[in-house]
Amino acid sequence: MRVPGTELQERVLNFQESLQKNGIEGALLVQRADTLYYTGTAQNVHAYIPREGRPIVLAYRDFARAKQESSWEVIPLKGMSKLPEYIQEAGLPLPKILGLELDVLPVNQFERYRKLFPDVLWVDVSNEIRLQRAVKSAWEIARLEESALIYPKVLEFAKDVLHVGMTEVELEGLLEGKARALGHGGHVRMRGFGSEFHVGAITSGARADVASCFDGPVVGQGISIAHPCGATMDQIQKGEPIVVDMVTVVNGYQIDQTRILSLGPLSEELTKAYEVARQVEEKIRCALIPGRVAGEVYEEILAWVRENTPYEENFMGFGASRVRFVGHGVGLDLDELPTISKGAKEVLKYGMVVAIEPKLVFPGVGVVGIEDTVVIETEKGARYLSEIPRELTVL
Amino acid sequence: MRVPGTELQERVLNFQESLQKNGIEGALLVQRADTLYYTGTAQNVHAYIPREGRPIVLAYRDFARAKQESSWEVIPLKGMSKLPEYIQEAGLPLPKILGLELDVLPVNQFERYRKLFPDVLWVDVSNEIRLQRAVKSAWEIARLEESALIYPKVLEFAKDVLHVGMTEVELEGLLEGKARALGHGGHVRMRGFGSEFHVGAITSGARADVASCFDGPVVGQGISIAHPCGATMDQIQKGEPIVVDMVTVVNGYQIDQTRILSLGPLSEELTKAYEVARQVEEKIRCALIPGRVAGEVYEEILAWVRENTPYEENFMGFGASRVRFVGHGVGLDLDELPTISKGAKEVLKYGMVVAIEPKLVFPGVGVVGIEDTVVIETEKGARYLSEIPRELTVL
Repeated sequence: MRVPGTELQERVLNFQESLQKNGIEGALLVQRADTLYYTGTAQNVHAYIPREGRPIVLAYRDFARAKQESSWEVIPLKGMSKLPEYIQEAGLPLPKILGLELDVLPVNQFERYRKLFPDVLWVDVSNEIRLQRAVKSAWEIARLEESALIYPKVLEFAKDVLHVGMTEVELEGLLEGKARALGHGGHVRMRGFGSEFHVGAITSGARADVASCFDGPVVGQGISIAHPCGATMDQIQKGEPIVVDMVTVVNGYQIDQTRILSLGPLSEELTKAYEVARQVEEKIRCALIPGRVAGEVYEEILAWVRENTPYEENFMGFGASRVRFVGHGVGLDLDELPTISKGAKEVLKYGMVVAIEPKLVFPGVGVVGIEDTVVIETEKGARYLSEIPRELTVL
Repeated sequence: MRVPGTELQERVLNFQESLQKNGIEGALLVQRADTLYYTGTAQNVHAYIPREGRPIVLAYRDFARAKQESSWEVIPLKGMSKLPEYIQEAGLPLPKILGLELDVLPVNQFERYRKLFPDVLWVDVSNEIRLQRAVKSAWEIARLEESALIYPKVLEFAKDVLHVGMTEVELEGLLEGKARALGHGGHVRMRGFGSEFHVGAITSGARADVASCFDGPVVGQGISIAHPCGATMDQIQKGEPIVVDMVTVVNGYQIDQTRILSLGPLSEELTKAYEVARQVEEKIRCALIPGRVAGEVYEEILAWVRENTPYEENFMGFGASRVRFVGHGVGLDLDELPTISKGAKEVLKYGMVVAIEPKLVFPGVGVVGIEDTVVIETEKGARYLSEIPRELTVL
């Protein structure tokens, strides 16, 4: 599926408005999700977006595919040193103030650009891009809805294959394989330097409460010191909460969801806690309203948990390992804006898409919680992008 | 499995030698594979390695795990701005010449360091690190040998599940799931900016000859424009070569291997070409000898193919999509040194580990070839890290 030309035009026009407002003459973009967003191809390209007029797409691998996929003009990039020439040959002025994605661009690559454009003032445009990408178009929301169709099928499959004594990683492998067969793209993109996430983090019982480098409330021990997140080689036991946290991606658009399964009933304590997590999810969903400030929503949810539940210490991790968010933007990357997090200043807007994930961690026992991806589109709260039963699944 | 303290000491001492030789007073490292290599933990840390003495490991998530995993002193990193303090508190002088991984470090993060260490001369130490990491210790080679045990089992499993009409991505999902169940870590690490690789690239027939952004001879169409590498939703047919190119990783160490399967015999043309690929693999293996220059080996192999086979045009891609290497270093990252590539100046050394992958691309027909990971350890050629039958597997 190609990104429609009208969609690309709209995206570039919006970005050009922000360039003009900030007095920037053009932007040279290289991050894969950004270039996919503005050019429609995920091939290796440099996208030059002038403050007005058509962007040029300089493709170095694979040129033929980039040309076929993007509705902009695509030129073969025959050498980085020719970048200024390509801009001039397209009839565009050489910029004096040029935007780059300085949040991700490696220093050495920046130094190459500095030599090629010696008299330029460099400006970081990454925040403007992230804010723009946070607001999804109707076309993007339709893509996210398609992507959301995979997880419920994987969950049905999980009910068929799950049995006492299978290892966490065996389950993770089967569910990922099923997701792939259904069209899941496999690779989960993240913008943050050094961030990495495998498709799923399937963890069970007390193994789920182990913190790790990944900035999430439930991470898990992982399979080795070198891969310290997610499933282990340990066996799944009866009566433990099994956290099926998965990211699925179709046409680049990612959906992040979690449900809890168990073989035999959970303890009364965990069952009660799970119902509270569901309540908190509804609280978050209803608070995601255009015009509200993300950080204020976060504080409100925290206060509600503190005042109305006995789980303040268990919410979003335990002790020093607690994370300071209850939701995060998703789209072409898994770590998009807005984050519903401590101190976040972003104002919520129509079309923002957020994975909300209230989770309660009980050290030595296990984790219960829920996660859904929602879109902000009414003043009465966000809408779930998929309707999957929210009850505990006891097998 | 922890990285032994003696192993970490040896690695740090070697790196300190290179710092001293280059007049660098210390290095501040953040790339995950580098910090795992020098500290023994894959948690989020900054590793400060002074030109002499013990490194300090500043961990910000998860501190407890980092402390347990690394045999160096681990200190909780309570804020980036405290970096200079931590160095002084450890009794180390503040450096005037400081090394960073400038090939991967984002500009904005670099700017933060510049403010914290205002009078410092910054030096890129990434090439020294990459050259050091290219040479594997006996302990690392043992880890690679363990990692190499997964692929042959996955291949046996492939023989059981493969059938006419299954989709490429269904097969890919099943094989990845099997690899996971056997202990494969899932996430494939790459150093290159924007580089991404899913676990496997299972492609069949003419679908395998499609080039893409990934810098490899056989990439495949992928499942969408947004994920343009690897398997498709197309069905596998009788008599087509099925390229099972997979990376497996155990304890962080990656092994890259390819075998060809088919349902029913391949054409005589492809069968003959496959035998040539096997011959070329042996030529490459035998040419990987300590003291040789990587780029010279590359040219020698190219010349041999040109002079002794009819496949010059088909070797390592076709036409404009050909890649200019026949092998690449592997270890904690998939894109390590040395590359056996055009113009590569690296001198081969004992302990270097290389994935060699002669592949022949026939447009509109399919791809045949082979890939194995080898270690350079004798003057008679490299040693295969796994012994998997090298015949075509016709089912």
